[in-house]
This record gives sequence, C-alpha cells and structure tokens, in this order.
Amino acid sequence: MKEKRAVFKENTYLISQYHHCILPDDLRAKADAQKTSSIDFSTRLNPMGNVFQYQHSGLNLDGLINAAKKQINQYPDNRYLEFRTAAADFIGKGITFANVVPGSGTCELIRLILGCTLEKGDIVLTPFPSTPEYALNSVLFGARVLPLPPHELLLAEDDVLSCARLVLLSNPANPGGHLIPRKELRLFAERCAENKTMLIVDESCIELCDPSQTLAGYTFGNDYLVIIRSIAHSFSLPGLKASYAIASENLAQYFNNGRLPWSIGAFSDLLCTAVLSIEGGINSRYLEESRQLIQSQRNYLMNRIGRIYGFSPQHSDANYLLVDLKDLFMDSRTLTQNLASKGFLIKDCSSFFQAEKQFVRIGMRTQEDNDILLKAIGEVLTETSKEDARERLEVTIESAASGAAPASRGTCQYYPCHFKGQDCTFCFCPFYACEDERTGGKWIVGSSGNRVWSCENCTYIHQSTLSRQILDILMEEGDTEANIQKAWSKILKPLL
Amino acid sequence: MKEKRAVFKENTYLISQYHHCILPDDLRAKADAQKTSSIDFSTRLNPMGNVFQYQHSGLNLDGLINAAKKQINQYPDNRYLEFRTAAADFIGKGITFANVVPGSGTCELIRLILGCTLEKGDIVLTPFPSTPEYALNSVLFGARVLPLPPHELLLAEDDVLSCARLVLLSNPANPGGHLIPRKELRLFAERCAENKTMLIVDESCIELCDPSQTLAGYTFGNDYLVIIRSIAHSFSLPGLKASYAIASENLAQYFNNGRLPWSIGAFSDLLCTAVLSIEGGINSRYLEESRQLIQSQRNYLMNRIGRIYGFSPQHSDANYLLVDLKDLFMDSRTLTQNLASKGFLIKDCSSFFQAEKQFVRIGMRTQEDNDILLKAIGEVLTETSKEDARERLEVTIESAASGAAPASRGTCQYYPCHFKGQDCTFCFCPFYACEDERTGGKWIVGSSGNRVWSCENCTYIHQSTLSRQILDILMEEGDTEANIQKAWSKILKPLL
Repeated sequence: MKEKRAVFKENTYLISQYHHCILPDDLRAKADAQKTSSIDFSTRLNPMGNVFQYQHSGLNLDGLINAAKKQINQYPDNRYLEFRTAAADFIGKGITFANVVPGSGTCELIRLILGCTLEKGDIVLTPFPSTPEYALNSVLFGARVLPLPPHELLLAEDDVLSCARLVLLSNPANPGGHLIPRKELRLFAERCAENKTMLIVDESCIELCDPSQTLAGYTFGNDYLVIIRSIAHSFSLPGLKASYAIASENLAQYFNNGRLPWSIGAFSDLLCTAVLSIEGGINSRYLEESRQLIQSQRNYLMNRIGRIYGFSPQHSDANYLLVDLKDLFMDSRTLTQNLASKGFLIKDCSSFFQAEKQFVRIGMRTQEDNDILLKAIGEVLTETSKEDARERLEVTIESAASGAAPASRGTCQYYPCHFKGQDCTFCFCPFYACEDERTGGKWIVGSSGNRVWSCENCTYIHQSTLSRQILDILMEEGDTEANIQKAWSKILKPLL
Repeated sequence: MKEKRAVFKENTYLISQYHHCILPDDLRAKADAQKTSSIDFSTRLNPMGNVFQYQHSGLNLDGLINAAKKQINQYPDNRYLEFRTAAADFIGKGITFANVVPGSGTCELIRLILGCTLEKGDIVLTPFPSTPEYALNSVLFGARVLPLPPHELLLAEDDVLSCARLVLLSNPANPGGHLIPRKELRLFAERCAENKTMLIVDESCIELCDPSQTLAGYTFGNDYLVIIRSIAHSFSLPGLKASYAIASENLAQYFNNGRLPWSIGAFSDLLCTAVLSIEGGINSRYLEESRQLIQSQRNYLMNRIGRIYGFSPQHSDANYLLVDLKDLFMDSRTLTQNLASKGFLIKDCSSFFQAEKQFVRIGMRTQEDNDILLKAIGEVLTETSKEDARERLEVTIESAASGAAPASRGTCQYYPCHFKGQDCTFCFCPFYACEDERTGGKWIVGSSGNRVWSCENCTYIHQSTLSRQILDILMEEGDTEANIQKAWSKILKPLL
C-alpha cells in the first residue's frame, strides 16, 4: 500500500506563495473607504471605459440584458456556436468557430491548456518577469518553471526548447509592456513547433496596442501554438466572464472536449457575443480611439512620471507602464499602500519579481485621472518624507543614547548626498520642512505638479558641530514638536 | 533528454470518450426546430422554474440586474465575501464564509478539488452509475477510476478505502435518485477520514429532496470531507454561474488559494447572493413548495411511467427518475432521439453506464408538462412500432431472397412471444396496425393515455403456412403499400 502524503498532492502546498498577487481586494477596500469609489490604476483595462457607454458602438445594453434575463432559467448551449463564430469573425485571418475554445476567463483557459498538457516534472519556460498566474498554474500541475529574460527566451537554443514541455508568455509583456513584433515571434513559434514544445501566447491586451501583430493567423495546422484573447481588457468589461483561445482545429477539439461545460453564463454569453460583433470589429471606432488615447496618455505619463525623483518608467507599447523604484526611498509595497489609503490603486509588482519590492505597474486612464494620480503621488512623497524624517530622528536619538554609532557612511548608497565628508548623524533633517528660505531650501514644483520643499542647497544638518548640538538638545529635552522648535531657535536661527 | 509524447499528456487523449454526455445540444437543436422551444426533461432543475418569478420570494430581479449592470466595468472582489457569507448563512450549522469556496459552477469546483488532490496513478472510487463528469475530471488528472455499486462502496473495507486517494459521489445519486441518509453517510465519511481518503459529496439536488440529510455540518476539523452545493439546480438558474463548496477552514483556504480568480461575474454574483439570502433560506416557501411538487410529481410519474410497457422506473428520492428500458424494443438513444424530434428532451444515460444504452433519466416538471411528455412517449412508441415493422419487413424479404434463414429463434430474447414453435419469419407483422378486430387484435389504452393497437391475441403471422404465402407475394410483387394490401386480401382476409 502506497504511503499517502497529507491531504493534497505535494505541489498544492506551494501555490499559496503565488496567491497574494491576485488579491488586491484588501487594498481596494482600504482605497474605497477613502472615497465613495477608488480610482483604479492597478488593472490593464481599456481606459476608455466599458464599450456599452458609447453610442457609436451600436450596442444596446438594455436590450441585450433583457434577452439574457429570459435565459437565466435554461442551460446555455455548451457548444457556444454564436459566441465562437463572433470571436472567429472578430479575429478574421481565416479563423472559424472550429478554431475557437470558449472559456469564462483567460485564467480558466490557461488552466485548461496547462491541465491538458503538463505532467509532474515537466518544464515550463516563461519570461521574467511574468504574472504569477503562469507559475501558479504550472506548479499546480507539477511542472517546474524556468524564468528567462525575455530576449534570452526568444533566443533559447533548440536543446533548451526541446527540454521544455511548454512556453507561456504575454504579448504585450505583462508587467513590462513590450510588444514582440509578429515576425520575430512567428519565427520563435516555428522553432517551438519543431521542438514539439507548446507555445501559449497570451494576447490579452494586444487589441489595445497593435492587433496586427497577433499570431492568430499562424495557428492553422500548428498543433503547438495557442493564442489567448480577452474581452474584459479590450472592452473594459471585467464584470463579464467570457474569453477565448484560438488554436488549430485539432487542438481546439481536444480543448473543447476537456473544457468546463457551460462555463459562460447567459449574461456574459449574450453581451460578449454582441461586443465581438461590434461594427468594424478590431478596427471599430471604439478600439481605434482607445489605441489613440492609450498612445497619447502613455507618452504623457511616461514623461511626467519619469520626472518624479526615484520613478523610472520602462519603455512600453501597451496600456500600462512598469515603473522601477530602485532610487525611491520607499518600496513598491509602501508606495502602493500609501496611495491606496488616499483612494488610488496601483499594482505592486513584488509578486511578478519574486517578491522584489522594486516595481509598480500603472495602468493608463484618462488624462484627468492620470493628473489626479500624479498629484496624489506627489502628496504621498511629501507626507512620507515628513513621517520618515520624524521616524529617523527617533532612531538617531535612540542610537546616540545607547552609544551606538549613527548610520555609517559606508553602508549608505546615497552617500554623499550633499558633500563629501558630511556628518550623517541626521540622515533626515529633524526640521523638515522648515520652509525657511534663508537656509538655502526652497519650494520647487515637482514633476507631479505638486509643491515640494527641496533641501538640496541646505547643508547645516550635515555639519558635525551643529548636528551634535542639535542632538544634545533633543536627547535631553525629548523630540517633541516644541523641543524641535527650541533646537531650531537656539542652534540654527542665529546662523541664518 | 526525455522523449516527448505528442502534443498532450497521455490522459488528455482519453477524455473525449466522456464528452458526449455533456453535449445534448445537437438534440436540443433538433427539439427546438420542432417547437419554438423544446420542453426539457433532461436536466435536474427545480420544476417550479426560476425563483425570481415568485413574488413571495421577495427577490427583485430588475433591481438586482440594474445593480449588476453598474459593475460590469470593474473586477469583482475576488474574495466574494458577501456571496460566501450568504452561502454560509443559507447552510447554517455553524458554517461561516471561511468554510466556503466559491466557484462558477459545480464542474469548476470538482475540477479544482481533484486538481489539488490527484496525481498520476491515484485511485478514485465512485458509485456505478455516476455522471461521466467524475470520470472525466479524474482521468484528466491521471487517476484511475474504480466504479463500485453504491452499497458496496459504502461498505468498502478499510484496505480498499485506504488505497484510494479520493471518493466522489452524488447525494442524492445521479442518475439513480437514491438519497443516502445522513447517519449512514456520516459513518462512511468518518471511515474515509480515518483512512486519509478525501470524500467529496456532491449535494447538487439535496435541497430539492431533503436538505436535513446534508453532511455540511460535519466538515469542521475534518480535512477529508468536501460538500458541493449548486444554486442552478435548486433555484432553476442554470444561466447564472455561481456555486460553492463547503469544507474545513484549513481545506477551504487551500482551495481559495488555488481556485480560478474572479470566476463569478457581476450578474451571477449579485443575483445568486440575493437568492441565497432568500427569506426562510432552506425552508423558504419557494423551496418548501418545490419539495412538495417534486414529491407529488415523482409519485405520479413513477406510477404512470411504470405502466408503460418496457419502462421500469427505479426508486428515487430526487427530482428525477432513472428508467430502465431493458424490456423496451428500442434503446435509450433511439427513444431520446425520437422524443427530441417531437420537441421533448430526456437524458440518454448511456454515458453514465459506460455506453450501455438501457437507461434514460427523466427530470420532473409540472403535471401539465409531465402529461404532455407521457402522451409524446405513447406517440413515439406507436410510430416507432409501425416504422420498425416496415423496416423489418424489408430485411425479412431481402433475407429470404438471398436464401438466408430468417431471424433464428435461438438468438431472440423474446422467443416465444406468442406460442412455442411459432414461425419467426416475420418478427414484426407487415400488416401492423391492421386495425381489424377480427384478427384478435384490439385497441387498448396505454398507460401513457394513448391508444395502442395490441396484437397480443393475433398469431396468424407466426403460422408457418401463412407466413410463407405472404412472403412469396411480397417478394414477387414488392413491399409497396398496395402489395401489402394485396397479400392481406388474398391470404388473411379469407380466414377472418
């Protein structure tokens, strides 16, 4: 008799580590508590908002809802012929309903494809970084995930490709935003097929980017290529549950045999079928205007965010920006939480980068919303600077009281922030923001449009004699607001 | 380098055999073509129809739809706290939201639980017969399914239980309809836990049967028991996609980590949360009246169907009857197709019984609908008898022309249907239905209320001399309607 291991199979115990990424809902609750409704930059939804609100879409939401309402008491036709035909026509390129695999969402489709393909010990290649959903689903089916930098993945040798059972990537990349040109990805798809390695291209946001770069047209006769498309992202309808995969007829038939039956409900089925049948399809006015808005706001945000100290947005072709915060004095989680407490949601990417808290992803919205976010970022930075200064002051005093040395220059990556040989007893100034221009400090307008008190030209606190005198007062009298004022009056004021 | 096997893992190639069971949609299309809408007895839905149409439910469908409509452009809260709390309150027994795992349907939940548990080579025990969904999902994850007769399964020895990773059963049984009493199933659940074997009890129809028999109250602290409940069946809402599993907090947390994110859309979330919050809950007027209707119609149908020749309904506690057709002259698939072509859907159970075409499942509806079905069954039986007689006549003539022997008595399970030593050249009478009472035949009223021409007391066609003379005429002249009349006039008429 076989020895049994606890309740679940081994890998099930691993998946919780991928979980927090898909649960920003506690943050959302925090944000919603601040406003009647938070402003959400954490998703990758079309910034135009849901397609039904545009009269030029020709879609009659109430009519569709009424039709769906009459169908809640009957099973949908599990073949979903109308939905699949609408999807095929929307994609074009000779695709028919027989190439289409319907699903309630991209996650369901990814799990279906991986569930049909992966066995324990298989290797899955993904670009690094990628959404943790890819790792979660791979691990659930017992596979090992081998993350590679995107360019290395595309150049992987045949012996690497042939060892892997499956390659799973987003195009445009998530969270990176880079779109791999069709010609380049097509060659890679051919190499995957030659090596009998399944390639899954998650094109969730390609319609908001450049749909002509899709690989959908290359699925014919290729049993090693699957394309995944989303309706939620392109048409800003995440409350509806319908998406689809595109594959060769042979492959699609297996997936259609294995997929969850009746997984698209009446409302999602009817509404999404109508959306896919929008006049003009992929070139409908709604999608054309969406791409224009995204391009202009991407340039705008790129420029504005790039000018905030510590924010380095990465090149993107998509409707979202990955921002590197390595030069910021707070990590991605703190920034995300501080913005949430003001009613703004952005995506902390620590789960994409294996818990490295250095990146956030910001989804594009309208310029009005984007400006509000920039202002909020400015506020968070100012407030956090003040709080930070106060906290560090306490640490400094405690540290001095216990006789320990102040933060050593050697360990600080910012040394010398003002001048070589500076005294670092006070890493942050206890008088911040003094708002006294005689110090050399001044109000500047931050790139986010917010006023920021800049200490760039004030160095008093880093002069050894002064910092020692100030520390003595604060240690003796305590670091209350009144005593900080006293230190100011006694030590600094006479010098100004 | 590991040898790769085609596109998929091995077991994916096996699942197509379980597929046709979940695709009655071609039949539905056939049925719908006959009427503006077919009458569906193939499902296990509440015969009261969807709960929203009852004012006493207190549910405001339009209000809920309007609220959901406003949420299609935002992601649902993936924690589904309101839905899970409503489900917990509906079940009672001390269950809280932390015991509840939401899913878009029972199939999604079964796949989730099996996906977290099963590895290649594991053994799954199910009662025989069971819905092929259980086998499909087990096989997809590499397990071997060991089907046992229900009473044997419950009495399985510890060494059998401990060899299995998982037991998967419906209560009430599907398609059988038998409800295992709580006390009996509880003991079995305890034995499963002792043997570290996961027990999944699919209680999809228990609310239409006797919800007091649920095992939901025994999930606390038992990490080897999961209960699955359905909203679609109980409230006749298969167009909405929301259901849930109940398990210990520990188990539920793993499943909540592993489940598909955001799998319940805005409409299903809001509408189903409201339905679960119905006043009176499990004892609401709607569910009480449903159980009364089901009980009375079960007795009625049991009685009426049991009197149709060849129809043997099995004992049922549920809202559906399993009918054994072994004594009928047509198989389950033919009966199902013939009824579909008249606009009536019943469930061919050949996929439940590993393709033995001997059983159909008939879901209960209102007495009005049930009476229409009984009439349609009568019509199908009469028509099929006529068609069958004609077809067999052609076979008989061809067989005689080629010098082959007629159907041998030894191979016919009905021999002797009239008298010992009868001539079986004509298995079915070419003159059926002659409607001439001088033959000994007569009109009888079938149990379905339909007139049926009975040949029980007519034996002419099985007398050797007569059958030879009739065959000679039909072979010489052809089996047209006119020549059948000629044979009648020349051979039979003089004898009457």
